[in-house]
Amino acid sequence: MSSSSSTTVVGVELGARRYDVHIGTFVPPAIAETLAAALGPDVTGVAVLVDGDLGKRSPRVAPLVEALQARLPRVNRYDLPGGEASKTLDEIGRTTQWLAEQGYDRRAAVIGIGGGATGDHSGFAAAVYLRGVRFALCPTTLLAMVDASVGGKTAVDLPAGKNLVGAFHQPRAVVADLGFLETLPAREQTAGLAEVVKCGFIADPSLLAIFAAHPGGRLGLDAIAALVAGAVRVKADVVAEDEHEGGRRAILNFGHTIGHALEAESAYALLHGEAVSLGMIAALSLGEARGITPPAVAMLARAMLADVGLPVDLEGRVTPAVMARVGVDKKRAGKKVRFVLCAAAGDTRLVDVGLDELTAHFLPSGA
Amino acid sequence: MSSSSSTTVVGVELGARRYDVHIGTFVPPAIAETLAAALGPDVTGVAVLVDGDLGKRSPRVAPLVEALQARLPRVNRYDLPGGEASKTLDEIGRTTQWLAEQGYDRRAAVIGIGGGATGDHSGFAAAVYLRGVRFALCPTTLLAMVDASVGGKTAVDLPAGKNLVGAFHQPRAVVADLGFLETLPAREQTAGLAEVVKCGFIADPSLLAIFAAHPGGRLGLDAIAALVAGAVRVKADVVAEDEHEGGRRAILNFGHTIGHALEAESAYALLHGEAVSLGMIAALSLGEARGITPPAVAMLARAMLADVGLPVDLEGRVTPAVMARVGVDKKRAGKKVRFVLCAAAGDTRLVDVGLDELTAHFLPSGA
Repeated sequence: MSSSSSTTVVGVELGARRYDVHIGTFVPPAIAETLAAALGPDVTGVAVLVDGDLGKRSPRVAPLVEALQARLPRVNRYDLPGGEASKTLDEIGRTTQWLAEQGYDRRAAVIGIGGGATGDHSGFAAAVYLRGVRFALCPTTLLAMVDASVGGKTAVDLPAGKNLVGAFHQPRAVVADLGFLETLPAREQTAGLAEVVKCGFIADPSLLAIFAAHPGGRLGLDAIAALVAGAVRVKADVVAEDEHEGGRRAILNFGHTIGHALEAESAYALLHGEAVSLGMIAALSLGEARGITPPAVAMLARAMLADVGLPVDLEGRVTPAVMARVGVDKKRAGKKVRFVLCAAAGDTRLVDVGLDELTAHFLPSGA
Repeated sequence: MSSSSSTTVVGVELGARRYDVHIGTFVPPAIAETLAAALGPDVTGVAVLVDGDLGKRSPRVAPLVEALQARLPRVNRYDLPGGEASKTLDEIGRTTQWLAEQGYDRRAAVIGIGGGATGDHSGFAAAVYLRGVRFALCPTTLLAMVDASVGGKTAVDLPAGKNLVGAFHQPRAVVADLGFLETLPAREQTAGLAEVVKCGFIADPSLLAIFAAHPGGRLGLDAIAALVAGAVRVKADVVAEDEHEGGRRAILNFGHTIGHALEAESAYALLHGEAVSLGMIAALSLGEARGITPPAVAMLARAMLADVGLPVDLEGRVTPAVMARVGVDKKRAGKKVRFVLCAAAGDTRLVDVGLDELTAHFLPSGA
């Protein structure tokens, strides 16, 4: 990666409230200053929840926690289980019990440092501890920078499926320090790009141009920064119109209906972005079958996802077990499942598809 | 109890939303009709969460569930552990897993039937399942009719203390069927009156007149209905001004700061109302020491609570262990604890008391 000193700030508007997503490469005191300003002068303590794997791997975590301790009151660090393992009600119980043992009160704040799972866990813990305390997020993976920075969706998993228990809880600020990406495994970085491609297809074709200008996934830091900022802007625009997911916000679920089920059924062997890539392939296939997605659009999307290095080989993956998971997915309304289908880059349709049609399309043998 | 056919409806206004609390003696189809109208015509299913002890004891539960099944789609019943045992994250995990296994989607609703613990559990489950589904409540204890009908506060307990994890989640309707009180143990009925006395002292002295007119706790159904309606009105007025407990709503915590700690430290051998009665005694004592509560007011309150049959013998109960619990109570802001003190019936003061002063007042030996 090349180095860059430019910083982009994307504002997220939510009714009377707003917060900023800061995207760039930052020194720890700058992050601490930004977070302190956003959390407010009356904050009484700060619990820093860190992804356990990241805490062991990244040299950036300890200096950041130290900078927070130098700038904010009663800063304590708690390392979560790494990744998806933190997304259980058991772990929420452990974290909130720790928060109580530390004596954090209603004017305390939670800062999450890690990927999407850490954002989900720390945001949900902040949402429910004492019925809600302040929250800020430092996403450290490309996926989390794009996906967890905007929307306020937090959740944990149940045996029955992913993200079935959660809350809407908006952060006071998000600081996406691209420096964390230096230690991110290549596979995770690639997976994170799935959400950027998604934003390109549902709302901002100019993001697709950046990929086209950097074939083979050879993206420098400036390109990454532009992709993250662009994707965050797409999400911010959509969420500003529809905070609680009644209408337009649903387009952000492009690729997620089947994607979530594939991810869960793989027991999370598939990364979220990989599952979303396959989920987009599924939605494109369904769109083609319904005459909504032109073959050229489907081909373009497949080619772009493959060029980025994401999986596009859907065949054989949508098993009866995956379909059963779609049946309890939280986006199922009544006996139909809501899909986001793509008519062109930047042009989507919300379509309710019956479980029968889905089964016929994805399990044609009737298995 | 005498019988009564009168029904009182108290409206609760919360910004753009509002809902009604229906208080009276109802036949099951009437309750089902009221709940169906409040939950909306597009509801896709209804999960009825029942307090397990109530389910075994009360002949009113089964006919009510049958009436709901006759009126609403996909009504299934799930019996919770009885009472406070349901208020754990483990039980929330079990309930939400059951909701998912039944295939309830985002347009489903949860109806809670039971006392305060059931209201807390079912409301919190509704708040977090799929990040929030519709909720309605049938409180079956006097305490729950008064305390859980208004406010939208839901919570479960942690080892560190009571109600430390929760959410604000407003019901679509509350139906307080006084018929359930017929099978309520006398001790629980008496405990429920503590919250009514509290409403009398913080906001509506006319409630105290009803008690004064029925000495020795000999209250008929009409008096009970008037007390419940009056207390619900007090809470509705306060909450309408302050949904998220930043300001005036804090007066509802009269008696709760010490009360919650006593309740938790007793391992719930004390009923909530009994603990709140003792907590009011504690707040009156603190108010007297600070010169805020006139001795005559403290004496009146003690006499009224004792006449109702509630415990007032605080001596020896506020142990160091109880004080430690006050230290992690969710109402502690910084190093001080917020107390509601009473200057006269209907006239309260919010006072932040240092932990040192509290310890000196309640643990004068410095134990």
